[in-house]
Amino acid sequence: MERILAKDVKNHVGEEIKLQGWVFQIRPVGKIKFLILRDRTGVVQTIILNKEIDISNVERESVVTIYGKPKLEKQAPGGVEVEVLKVELMEKAATPLPFEVNRASDLLNIKIDTLLDHRPFSLRNPEISSIFRVQAEIVRAYAEFLRNDGFLQVHTSKIISAGTEGGTNLFPIQYFEQTAYLAQSPQFYKQMLVGAGYERIFEIGFVYRAEDHATSRHINEYLSLDFEMGFIESEQDVINEEIRLLKYVFTCLKENCSEELKLHGVELQDIDTIPQLKLGEAIKVLKDKYNKTMETENDLDPEGERLICEYSKKEFNSDFVYITYYPASGRPFYTMPDGTGLTRGFDLLYKGLEVTTGSQRINNYDMLVDNMRKFGLKPENFEFYLEIFKYGMPPHGGLAIGTERLTQQILSLKNVREASLFPRDRFRLTP
Amino acid sequence: MERILAKDVKNHVGEEIKLQGWVFQIRPVGKIKFLILRDRTGVVQTIILNKEIDISNVERESVVTIYGKPKLEKQAPGGVEVEVLKVELMEKAATPLPFEVNRASDLLNIKIDTLLDHRPFSLRNPEISSIFRVQAEIVRAYAEFLRNDGFLQVHTSKIISAGTEGGTNLFPIQYFEQTAYLAQSPQFYKQMLVGAGYERIFEIGFVYRAEDHATSRHINEYLSLDFEMGFIESEQDVINEEIRLLKYVFTCLKENCSEELKLHGVELQDIDTIPQLKLGEAIKVLKDKYNKTMETENDLDPEGERLICEYSKKEFNSDFVYITYYPASGRPFYTMPDGTGLTRGFDLLYKGLEVTTGSQRINNYDMLVDNMRKFGLKPENFEFYLEIFKYGMPPHGGLAIGTERLTQQILSLKNVREASLFPRDRFRLTP
Repeated sequence: MERILAKDVKNHVGEEIKLQGWVFQIRPVGKIKFLILRDRTGVVQTIILNKEIDISNVERESVVTIYGKPKLEKQAPGGVEVEVLKVELMEKAATPLPFEVNRASDLLNIKIDTLLDHRPFSLRNPEISSIFRVQAEIVRAYAEFLRNDGFLQVHTSKIISAGTEGGTNLFPIQYFEQTAYLAQSPQFYKQMLVGAGYERIFEIGFVYRAEDHATSRHINEYLSLDFEMGFIESEQDVINEEIRLLKYVFTCLKENCSEELKLHGVELQDIDTIPQLKLGEAIKVLKDKYNKTMETENDLDPEGERLICEYSKKEFNSDFVYITYYPASGRPFYTMPDGTGLTRGFDLLYKGLEVTTGSQRINNYDMLVDNMRKFGLKPENFEFYLEIFKYGMPPHGGLAIGTERLTQQILSLKNVREASLFPRDRFRLTP
Repeated sequence: MERILAKDVKNHVGEEIKLQGWVFQIRPVGKIKFLILRDRTGVVQTIILNKEIDISNVERESVVTIYGKPKLEKQAPGGVEVEVLKVELMEKAATPLPFEVNRASDLLNIKIDTLLDHRPFSLRNPEISSIFRVQAEIVRAYAEFLRNDGFLQVHTSKIISAGTEGGTNLFPIQYFEQTAYLAQSPQFYKQMLVGAGYERIFEIGFVYRAEDHATSRHINEYLSLDFEMGFIESEQDVINEEIRLLKYVFTCLKENCSEELKLHGVELQDIDTIPQLKLGEAIKVLKDKYNKTMETENDLDPEGERLICEYSKKEFNSDFVYITYYPASGRPFYTMPDGTGLTRGFDLLYKGLEVTTGSQRINNYDMLVDNMRKFGLKPENFEFYLEIFKYGMPPHGGLAIGTERLTQQILSLKNVREASLFPRDRFRLTP
């Protein structure tokens, strides 16, 4: 007998069906009992009228098979209820449970570390599990948009012999007799693959930063959505590509994750254009409107990012804002200078948090080698990267989006760890 | 002026257009010159009739912008030729080139290590670059099929505190003050996420094996296509899912990569059913038909795999064959026993090579803990994995496909390194 999923029960009214899933709730009401069954598609209410059906040994969260007959019932969730003919216990759940997971309110007093210590169990909470349905849809829509726009999906090695940005914040690996490192970004590979002739490539993969922070916005392993594109005019082509991409992602989320967004009380803004502020302008806004002086002129600090987003919301009614024209001293060596001491690098801030870094890159071999030396790097250590620049590299640029941060901001989660299935931070290596 | 891609030139006959790309070939014929331009969509022939257009400083593989007028020309590839009005050199390629990349025959005498040392440059060869268009389509079709079948795409950590199979062949990482390891497989996480309530999940991600081999079938970092599904009856449900999946992937390849398959001289067999042999039967076939005795009864060796595929091709006209019912001693501790000393584990062989390992898994907590002890593992070291089994784990199973091996076998490549953009092996850490 084929299994029927919770979401499809309403199509089988009057038939005898087989359900399988987890026991979400058991509610005795007088002589009858309600058993709410949960499977991957949702919950369905079943009712036990026959006193000979004994479920005294069925604990909540146990795995069961239920045979029964669906009937229309206005009071029941989804308007349908299944009268139980038989219950088979497949795997009994131990008691007590680590904590209650049924309702959103069950989670209010549980610390995030407790939820993460018991990650698979906490995912049985519908609100928590919905985070990763939203994330999967972000990733799917991201890939679909870029593929339709001529980008090739690639997978580049995460074991590298030298760091992209010059060797800080790297996790060392014992690679047979050699020391290698976990990749901080696919930056070099993305550029090399533009030069290889693919022109437009994207990658979805983990990257690693051995940063000592323990904040609500940092994890040490994160899923980076990268793309790189050749034959651009300037960084504005990269920005325009991202705006169209984000529009597409938001449209897909509204279409395919409306239930999940509702669970989190989120209504997504329509993306039209996204305002841009030069970093210098942003720093002036902070000083003039918020009486805040930045310690450096290289970048915004977290409070600066929050305030500029507040400003963008008020001035432009936009949750997003691009910060452009960063000084060379605050950006990596491969960033294209603009000729005035600034660069063609940009960040995208979203609801107070940086979610993207990108730029036009240097594509001329001599200029790139010079810039490496200015940054104190030895070009001879990067020959594997530099070679393709000798043999014809088109103007190009690209960016990276932090998937967990984007998920966090879309769903207004408090901590980026909530948006990682199995987060790795300063102290956490399990589960 | 908007750039026109090589593949679209035929739609602009008579117009003035802009082309951008790499100089693939320059052929002087008497007083005129042919310049073949290559971009991400292919090549287009341009013709220089005007003697005032000087391309003496344009080396092959340089990046150029060409303004010109397409006209129909039966002799030209694609039936169209562009008369050049102006050439702009964007980035000059150095001379000499590391090696010739234009034609397939250029590659015949180049060793694979030379090609890999200059990976981005070798990818300018259309035959080599096509490998990764095929691979991207495999990955795309894999994800699309599973998503449409109710599977959720997940991304699980590659930094782990203990090995899945008990601690051999692991690459150690210095993770702040702790020692961690690169994940050998997402096995534990896949199972935990079935138990978390997602039931059906898949992952596309790198895994790491510190194996000392240097063979044509091993790399130390490979892209694993994993899926895991709950509420199965037996390993046959997993096998059936994979057969439908492979059918879909092959159909998509035929539809979307016909040019690439042709470049490699490959005609894909239609997949209908896939024959199954129990390991014991396979060993008997090897002895009876090929006079080959296996050293152990646990598994086939590489020659055994080749011969059994030869047998499967002859007997069943199938490039694929499943080997089933492996003895428990040759499979991981989490493999479901069949009650007779064998297991519900299986491998899939394809044209002589193992491309998949899978099984039904143990879903009962007590049985799993017992089996860990039998395998000499300490359950107390794996509490993060075992916990969810206490709270209701449905029957489940899954498998892993090696993406590079599948690509290798589909395109009949000699070495698995050819199917990895930036392979990592015993000695290679760059590019």
